[in-house]
Amino acid sequence: MTKRQFLVSVIGGHKCTDKVSELAAEVGRIIADSGAALVCGGLGGTMEAACRGAKEAGGVTIGIIPGEDKNRANRFVDIVIPTGMGFSRNTLVVGTGDVVVALPGEYGTLSEISFALIGKKKVYGFDTWDIKGVIKLKDVGELKEVLDREKEG
Amino acid sequence: MTKRQFLVSVIGGHKCTDKVSELAAEVGRIIADSGAALVCGGLGGTMEAACRGAKEAGGVTIGIIPGEDKNRANRFVDIVIPTGMGFSRNTLVVGTGDVVVALPGEYGTLSEISFALIGKKKVYGFDTWDIKGVIKLKDVGELKEVLDREKEG
Amino acid sequence: MTKRQFLVSVIGGHKCTDKVSELAAEVGRIIADSGAALVCGGLGGTMEAACRGAKEAGGVTIGIIPGEDKNRANRFVDIVIPTGMGFSRNTLVVGTGDVVVALPGEYGTLSEISFALIGKKKVYGFDTWDIKGVIKLKDVGELKEVLDREKEG
Amino acid sequence: MTKRQFLVSVIGGHKCTDKVSELAAEVGRIIADSGAALVCGGLGGTMEAACRGAKEAGGVTIGIIPGEDKNRANRFVDIVIPTGMGFSRNTLVVGTGDVVVALPGEYGTLSEISFALIGKKKVYGFDTWDIKGVIKLKDVGELKEVLDREKEG
Repeated sequence: MTKRQFLVSVIGGHKCTDKVSELAAEVGRIIADSGAALVCGGLGGTMEAACRGAKEAGGVTIGIIPGEDKNRANRFVDIVIPTGMGFSRNTLVVGTGDVVVALPGEYGTLSEISFALIGKKKVYGFDTWDIKGVIKLKDVGELKEVLDREKEG
Repeated sequence: MTKRQFLVSVIGGHKCTDKVSELAAEVGRIIADSGAALVCGGLGGTMEAACRGAKEAGGVTIGIIPGEDKNRANRFVDIVIPTGMGFSRNTLVVGTGDVVVALPGEYGTLSEISFALIGKKKVYGFDTWDIKGVIKLKDVGELKEVLDREKEG
Repeated sequence: MTKRQFLVSVIGGHKCTDKVSELAAEVGRIIADSGAALVCGGLGGTMEAACRGAKEAGGVTIGIIPGEDKNRANRFVDIVIPTGMGFSRNTLVVGTGDVVVALPGEYGTLSEISFALIGKKKVYGFDTWDIKGVIKLKDVGELKEVLDREKEG
Repeated sequence: MTKRQFLVSVIGGHKCTDKVSELAAEVGRIIADSGAALVCGGLGGTMEAACRGAKEAGGVTIGIIPGEDKNRANRFVDIVIPTGMGFSRNTLVVGTGDVVVALPGEYGTLSEISFALIGKKKVYGFDTWDIKGVIKLKDVGELKEVLDREKEG
C-alpha cells in the first residue's frame, strides 16, 4: 500500500504582473518544500510561475490542461494531463488538490474558487476574488504554516 | 435548413424560498412567451420553478442534469440531457444558452456565472451574486424587454 | 407535469458515402415520423444526413457538438448543445438517447457504441462495428417496427 | 525547464481472473522498471494489479477515477485525480498516456481503446478486444522491448 501524495492546487490567471509572478513562484517553492505536489491548469502566467518555483525547490508539478496537446503545457510541468475538455477541466484542477491556493485571476479563477467551495475544500487566497468562504492570507509565511498544519490533519 | 432555436439558460439554486420560486416561474413564463426554449440544470428549486413557468406558458424545457438517470430531472423538463459529469456539467448549462438569466443561488450558480462570463455571454441577474459583468435587472418586465431585443440581434 | 420527449440517438461517421447518407436520411425520417426527437453529434456526414431527414419529416433535432461555437453544428440542427469537451462529449450523445441507432463510422462511433452498451441501452446497428451486444438491423422497415415497440415500452 | 515524465496508460476491466491479475502486475512492474509512470482508471481488478506491480518495482502511479472521493482509488495509487465525470473520464485515462497497454476488459476498455486510436496513440494489447489498429503482444517480454523503444523515440 502506498501513502497518497498530498496535493495542493494553485489557481490564478494565465497572465499576471511581475509582482504576482514572483508571489506565484514563492507559493510554488513553499508547496514543494512542504513535500506536497503542485497541481494547476498547466498554462502560463501564475500557473507557469508557480510550477517554476516548485521545480526550483525540487518538487513535482502536475498540469491539467484544457487541450489535447501535451506540448501546450508550460515547460515546468512534469506530468501533463491533457483533457481536451476546455474550461470544463477547471473542476478537475481544484478537485485534485487536497487544499487550494487562489492567486489573482479572472473568471476562470472565479469558477475554480466556486468549484473548490462546492467541494468543501479549504481555499487560501492571496489578493484574489472576495468570495465568502475564501480564507485570506497576508503573506507566504502564513501559507507555510497552513500547509504544515494541513498535512498533519 | 432549419432556423436555430433561441435558447435561454436559467441558473440558480436547487433550493429556494417561495418568493424566489415565484420569481423563477415568472422568468420561465416570459422566456416561453418570447418563443425561446428554456435550458437549465434540470433539478429542483429555481430550476423546477422556472421549468414549471415555461410549461404553463406552452414552452419547451431542456434539463442538463449532473447524473445519468433521466428520472432525476424535475417533472417539468421535456428534454433531459443526462451527463453523468456532476458539477462539470455547469459549463454546458450556460454554454447552451444564447443568453443567461441568473437567479439567487449558491456556489454552483457562481460557477455558472463565471463560465457564462468566460464565454462572453450576457448574464442578466435577479438578486444574485454581485460579480463584475452581471447586468442587474429589477423586475421581470425588464427581462421581457431584454429578450425581445436579444432575439432581434 | 410534462410528458418526457422520447429521444433517439443516431451515431455514425462525420464523413460518409452517398449510399450511407441516404440511409442516414431515411433513418432520420423514420425517427421523426415516430414522434421521437433525434439526437446526434451535430456535425457532418451521417449526422447531417440524419438531421436533414428528420427535418424533412417535420421532426426536432438536437446536436451535441464537441466545440464551443454553435455555428459549427450542421444546418439541420434545431437545438445546439456546445460542449467544448471534444470527444468526451460522445458519452452525452448516447446517454441522451432512449435508444441508439448506429450507422457506419470510425473509432468515434465505436466509442459511442461502447458507452451505449455500458449504459445498457439498446443499440440498433446498420452495417456498423460488429460488437457483441449490437442488434443488427437489415433495413429501415425493421427500425420503424423497433421504434414503435420501444415507445410503447 | 523540466523533462516531461513519460507516461504509460494501462486499461482493462475492474474485475479480472487471477491469471489476468498476475499479467497486469507484471505489466506494472515493467512500466516502472522502464522509468515511466503508470496511469490508469484507479479502481480495482486489472487497474489495482497493475498499480501494485508498479509500486513493487518502485514506480509512480496515477489514478484518474470516475468519482469525486479520493478514497475510492485503489490503495496502490500515489496521485489520485478525482474527476466526478463518470465514464467520460475514460478519454482522460488514455489521453494522458504516451502509449497505451490494453488488458482484457469489457465495454469500458473498448471505449478507451477507441479513444486511444482516435488520438492516434499506439495501443499494445494483451488478449483484449480485437479491433483494427491494436498491436497485439504475446508476452510481457515484448512489452519491455516496446517501452525501451518508445522512450527513445
